[in-house]
Amino acid sequence: MSIVIKDTEIPGREGRFDVLVEDDIIAGISHSEDGDRVISGAGKYLLPGFVNTHCHAAMSLFRGYADDLPLQIWLNEHIWPLESKLTAEDVYWGTKLACLEMIKSGTVAFNDMYFFMEAAARGVEEMGMKATLSHGFIDLGDEGRREEEIKRTEKFVAHIPGSKLVKPALGPHGVYTVSREGLEWCSRYSRKHELGVHMHLAETEQEMEQFGEGYQGNITDYLGEIGLLNNRLIGAHCVWLDDMDMENISRAGATVSHNPVSNMKLGVGKPMDYPFMRSAGVRVTLGTDSCASNNSLDMLETAKMAALQQKMGGDPTVLTAVEAYHMITRGGAEALNTGGGVIEEGMAADMILLEKGVKGAPGHNPISDIIYSLKGSDVTHVMINGRIVMGDRKVDNEDEIVREATARAMRLLKEVA
Amino acid sequence: MSIVIKDTEIPGREGRFDVLVEDDIIAGISHSEDGDRVISGAGKYLLPGFVNTHCHAAMSLFRGYADDLPLQIWLNEHIWPLESKLTAEDVYWGTKLACLEMIKSGTVAFNDMYFFMEAAARGVEEMGMKATLSHGFIDLGDEGRREEEIKRTEKFVAHIPGSKLVKPALGPHGVYTVSREGLEWCSRYSRKHELGVHMHLAETEQEMEQFGEGYQGNITDYLGEIGLLNNRLIGAHCVWLDDMDMENISRAGATVSHNPVSNMKLGVGKPMDYPFMRSAGVRVTLGTDSCASNNSLDMLETAKMAALQQKMGGDPTVLTAVEAYHMITRGGAEALNTGGGVIEEGMAADMILLEKGVKGAPGHNPISDIIYSLKGSDVTHVMINGRIVMGDRKVDNEDEIVREATARAMRLLKEVA
Repeated sequence: MSIVIKDTEIPGREGRFDVLVEDDIIAGISHSEDGDRVISGAGKYLLPGFVNTHCHAAMSLFRGYADDLPLQIWLNEHIWPLESKLTAEDVYWGTKLACLEMIKSGTVAFNDMYFFMEAAARGVEEMGMKATLSHGFIDLGDEGRREEEIKRTEKFVAHIPGSKLVKPALGPHGVYTVSREGLEWCSRYSRKHELGVHMHLAETEQEMEQFGEGYQGNITDYLGEIGLLNNRLIGAHCVWLDDMDMENISRAGATVSHNPVSNMKLGVGKPMDYPFMRSAGVRVTLGTDSCASNNSLDMLETAKMAALQQKMGGDPTVLTAVEAYHMITRGGAEALNTGGGVIEEGMAADMILLEKGVKGAPGHNPISDIIYSLKGSDVTHVMINGRIVMGDRKVDNEDEIVREATARAMRLLKEVA
Repeated sequence: MSIVIKDTEIPGREGRFDVLVEDDIIAGISHSEDGDRVISGAGKYLLPGFVNTHCHAAMSLFRGYADDLPLQIWLNEHIWPLESKLTAEDVYWGTKLACLEMIKSGTVAFNDMYFFMEAAARGVEEMGMKATLSHGFIDLGDEGRREEEIKRTEKFVAHIPGSKLVKPALGPHGVYTVSREGLEWCSRYSRKHELGVHMHLAETEQEMEQFGEGYQGNITDYLGEIGLLNNRLIGAHCVWLDDMDMENISRAGATVSHNPVSNMKLGVGKPMDYPFMRSAGVRVTLGTDSCASNNSLDMLETAKMAALQQKMGGDPTVLTAVEAYHMITRGGAEALNTGGGVIEEGMAADMILLEKGVKGAPGHNPISDIIYSLKGSDVTHVMINGRIVMGDRKVDNEDEIVREATARAMRLLKEVA
């Protein structure tokens, strides 16, 4: 089946276009395309769908549960007690709630790390999104726990052989929560099976002193020795890296997932050093982190905040709208190997329509309007792999997902009460 | 005529309520009210409408025209050349475009300073919003220009005798753009006619060295000597005030309009010192500033950014969701004397309905969800002075306003080309 999006504007191109999709691929961009199904793109921008490179989707169940608290109290007294009661069904519904919010705000693909990931994968497939999923591997230096995490990881990777939508990855949680032996296993396993690695990296200052049991070098030297610092790595946060670390990341071709909203909300202490990363040639992408520390999964909001956060110090020319736009489209898509990220023939048909409306007027600069003025709610259509997962702002089974996820969250509350 | 909002949730109260509006006043809140017209509030929060305490509405015509530029280049090379070509009709349509965006994101009242304010007032009245409007008084130390500004201000105040919706105020632009004599005239005129004063205050570091021709004291001492530092003053920005200034503002009962998005986007250099203001008891409210430096007029976005900006330095307990909520509702309403700001019997019926939907699930904490997760686009109904100005997300004449404002902006571009 073919779908044609008629009479739409594509940021970066002059004029209006028809865009033809055949199966899961963009098959034609011209002034006159025909297809089996026609969607009007008039008054709208057609963009690559957004890519969120750091998330814990199922934590949407905890949205608003504990805000405005110090990080350790938030984790120890609120989030971890709830997480200890989580079941696979909770993760399934929590993931679906997150996917629903992501789709409705234009996200087509995300990078996720959590528990019960078989259940998460089922939720993602049903929602029709693309995702790279990893089991959050945490051994806290304990050998028995490490063996369990290895088994869980192997089981998850075997369970998810990879589909057009969902891919498995390794998820060593961080250098302060996984032993060197655990990290080395992840490194070997990732190399052997050619899997991506998703880990937290340099989120807090404290973390920078809590790794490697007396290891004297830099955090990226440590990762390099272990074999994790390469182009399969996506490091989330990267706030407390020094210049040498950022150079190392650039040389290795690893990807940074910058999470400005979560960093600000949890008070990690300073903005990530984007200007240095940019000059060092690091691939910087954007993530929301979980709904427990954001409390939103809206990539347009994240893109605006990323730009604002960098400019605050005094230079309004840092992190432009064009750079933010690239981060949430092509940059993220390349990091997750989605095959999309650009509106060009032959690319995966992961695209969204964004209504200009009131906030897109008068329309002096489309990219600027998209990043600084338009909102996730202006997304009207989402296509992933050539399939319409949202049409005219409607997603299948919305009410059911909200109802079931809410019931799951309320059950968790009762369990910890 | 009476209107009843049925079966709604009011943040801060347990249970569901019917809220009765008679004429322009909240007349009853109980579990069973009847009225001539019924609006369902099921699945929604009923809140006081938001109040934006610093705006230049008509600048929505310049949205996206010049972003990611240094402040002085932005002003000198881009904004001022366009402004020099502005006509009253441009301001009328630009103001209507801004009002439309504000209404659609839940704002009921705003504090505006610009030019051709008779035209702005006409636009605001037609849109049914509340606003305090001031002619932006700028003399740059020139006596002739001062006389003209005095005449313009007097003419504007005479033209706007005050209605239930629109009130005039004095608008001395700032201490660096208005001479001491000009400020003194504004002070006397404001006292004589009991008018509010809306001015920029301590937005940039540069400004702190450019006032009073050799004046040695603090900026708030200067305002105090002139007679402007009192409870009629709303000072916008207040980033570069020192502790003594903030104490002075607190003692005088003046209001601060904090504009975090604009401050970050223009790179004013540091966050406003909210923790000190809070401990000093200063009334802090929130503003968007204009769409040329934001580029959005969404108060929920501004509230979230205000909280995030303050937390970034390391303390996630600073500026909580509850404080941000207060700033954009009751705080702003008290500063502008709208008569609303609280859902209580006898208060002005300036209220909005906010749909919980996907982003309001699972709903652990309504205020937290409102500030950190829900968006302006979740507003479904806006009532101002008892009149529904938006029902089911629809505002009258939306397409016409977008079309006319866009045409006006395009004409301005041609004029400067």
